[in-house]
Amino acid sequence: MIRDLWLVGIGTGSPAHISLEGQAALRDAATILIPRKGPAKDDLAELRHRILDAAGATARVLHFDMPTRDDSLPYQDRVIAWHDEIARRWQSALAEGASDGPVALLVWGDPGLYDSTLRIAQRLDPKPAIRVVPGITALQALTAAHAIPFNTVNGAVTVTTGRRLRDHGLPSESDTAIVMLDGECSFQQIEPDGLNIWWGAYLGMPEQILLSGPLQEIGPRIIETRAEARARHGWLMDVYMLRRGPAL
Amino acid sequence: MIRDLWLVGIGTGSPAHISLEGQAALRDAATILIPRKGPAKDDLAELRHRILDAAGATARVLHFDMPTRDDSLPYQDRVIAWHDEIARRWQSALAEGASDGPVALLVWGDPGLYDSTLRIAQRLDPKPAIRVVPGITALQALTAAHAIPFNTVNGAVTVTTGRRLRDHGLPSESDTAIVMLDGECSFQQIEPDGLNIWWGAYLGMPEQILLSGPLQEIGPRIIETRAEARARHGWLMDVYMLRRGPAL
Ligand SMILES: C[S@@+](CC[C@H](N)C(=O)[O-])C[C@H]1O[C@@H](n2cnc3c(N)ncnc32)[C@H](O)[C@@H]1O
Ligand SMILES: C[S@@+](CC[C@H](N)C(=O)[O-])C[C@H]1O[C@@H](n2cnc3c(N)ncnc32)[C@H](O)[C@@H]1O
Repeated sequence: MIRDLWLVGIGTGSPAHISLEGQAALRDAATILIPRKGPAKDDLAELRHRILDAAGATARVLHFDMPTRDDSLPYQDRVIAWHDEIARRWQSALAEGASDGPVALLVWGDPGLYDSTLRIAQRLDPKPAIRVVPGITALQALTAAHAIPFNTVNGAVTVTTGRRLRDHGLPSESDTAIVMLDGECSFQQIEPDGLNIWWGAYLGMPEQILLSGPLQEIGPRIIETRAEARARHGWLMDVYMLRRGPAL
Repeated sequence: MIRDLWLVGIGTGSPAHISLEGQAALRDAATILIPRKGPAKDDLAELRHRILDAAGATARVLHFDMPTRDDSLPYQDRVIAWHDEIARRWQSALAEGASDGPVALLVWGDPGLYDSTLRIAQRLDPKPAIRVVPGITALQALTAAHAIPFNTVNGAVTVTTGRRLRDHGLPSESDTAIVMLDGECSFQQIEPDGLNIWWGAYLGMPEQILLSGPLQEIGPRIIETRAEARARHGWLMDVYMLRRGPAL
C-alpha cells in the first residue's frame, strides 16, 4: 500500500536539469521505483544513477519490468490495458520490498507533459496522496538550446504531437507549434512555405544535435541527420518548433 | 562590452525550482545584473537573494532601474522603445562596474516564455554569445500544484494570453488552453459550458492559492479570491488552464 507517491521530474537529458526540489524529494523518499526497460536502456540507466548519486539518495531502489503493449487491441483499449498492467507491477514490486515512507518515481522531463505516470497512479487502490515535482521539459530544453523564445510577442503556441500534425495539419490559431512524439518527420506532410524549423535531438545530452532554418531547406537535412543518428546510437529522441516567420 | 551573457531561468516562485545547471551558472558568473523595480519588489528581491545565497554566488551584483513605458506611443513602438532603453541601461550599469567574465541575468520562470530578455539581448552591440539556462515555468508550476497532466491523451495544448483569449476566443484546435498574463479574468468572455478550470496564484510560494472545477461555478470564486489576494499582498501573479472535460 502506497500512502505517498511522488512523481519527480528529472529533466530531459542533462543530470543538471534537476531542480533543488527534485533533489530533496529523491533524498527524502524511502523507496524509489525504476522501470527496467526503456528506449535507451543503458544511457538512461546511467543518467538515473548519476541523478540519484548527486541527490544523495539513500532510498531502497526497486525495479519493475515494463509490460509490452498488446497490439491485437484497438488503440484506446491497448493503452488502458497497458496502464492497468503497469499499476499492477508497481504494486507487486512494492509489495516485495518497499521501505516505510514516500515512494518516488523518476519521470523524464516534467511529469505532466505527454507522460502516462499520473494516469497510471490513478489506478492505485487505495489512492495515494500524489505530489508532483515539476521538471524541465523538452519544450524548454529545445528553446534554450537554440536560444530562442517559446512565443512571439503576444503570440500563442500550440504544443502537439506528430500524429496530430499528420491528421490535422498545422494549427492555424497559433503562429508557433512545438511537435513532440514524432517518429515520422511529420513536418513533411505540411506546406513548408513561410515556415522556419528549430529541431533538436538528444537535448541536454553530450550527443545533442541542433538544426534550424527554413523548413523547405532544412527539412531534408533533418531527415538524413535523424536517420544517421538513430543508426549510430540505436535510439533517438527529438522535438521541433515550427514558426511562421523569424525566431524573435 | 559583454562577451558572454547568460539568461538563467530561476523558476516561478519557489527558491527550490532552480536547477543544478542554474545554480552552477550563478556560481560561475562574474557579474549578475538585477533590476531594481518589479511588480512585487520586496518579495522578489528576497527570493533572488535566497537563490544567489544557496547557489554560493560570489559575482559582483549590479543593479539597473527599469524604465517606464511611454504610454503616448502606439503599442508596438512603445515596446520597442522600452526594450531599447533597457538594453542601454544594462550597458551603462555594466560599464560602471562589471567584473571580467560572464554576465548573468536571473529570469523569472524560463527565459523563453513570455519574457522579453532574449529580445533585449539582441540589441546589445557588439552581440554577446547568449546562453539560456532553462527554468521551471508557470505552466509546470500550475499543473504540478494541481497534480494534473498538461495534455489529454494525444491532445494538443495551446499556451496563450488573456488578451488573445478576449480577442480570439478559446482556441478550437486544442482541448486545453493555458492562459498567462491575464489581468482581467478574461475567462469571463467565453462560453463556460463544458469547460473546467484549474487556477493558481503565487505558485511555488508560501502564499500559493489553488482553485479548480467547472468554469461556470468556479469562475466567480476566482474573481473574488483574486481581488482579495491582490488587495492583501499588493500584487498578484496567476495562471490557469481551461480544458473541455476532466483533468486526466
Ligand atoms: C513521452 S514524451 C515525454 C516528454 C517529457 N515528459 C517532457 O517533459 O519533455 C517524449 C517526447 O519528448 C521529447 N523529448 C524528450 N526528451 C528529449 C530530448 N532530450 N531531446 C529531444 N526530444 C526530447 C520527444 O519529442 C519525445 O518524443
Ligand atoms: C511575463 S510572464 C513570465 C513567465 C515566465 N517566464 C515563466 O516561465 O513562467 C508572467 C506570467 O506568468 C505567470 N506566472 C509566473 N509566475 C507565476 C506564479 N508563481 N504563479 C502564477 N502565475 C505565474 C502569470 O500568468 C504571469 O502573468
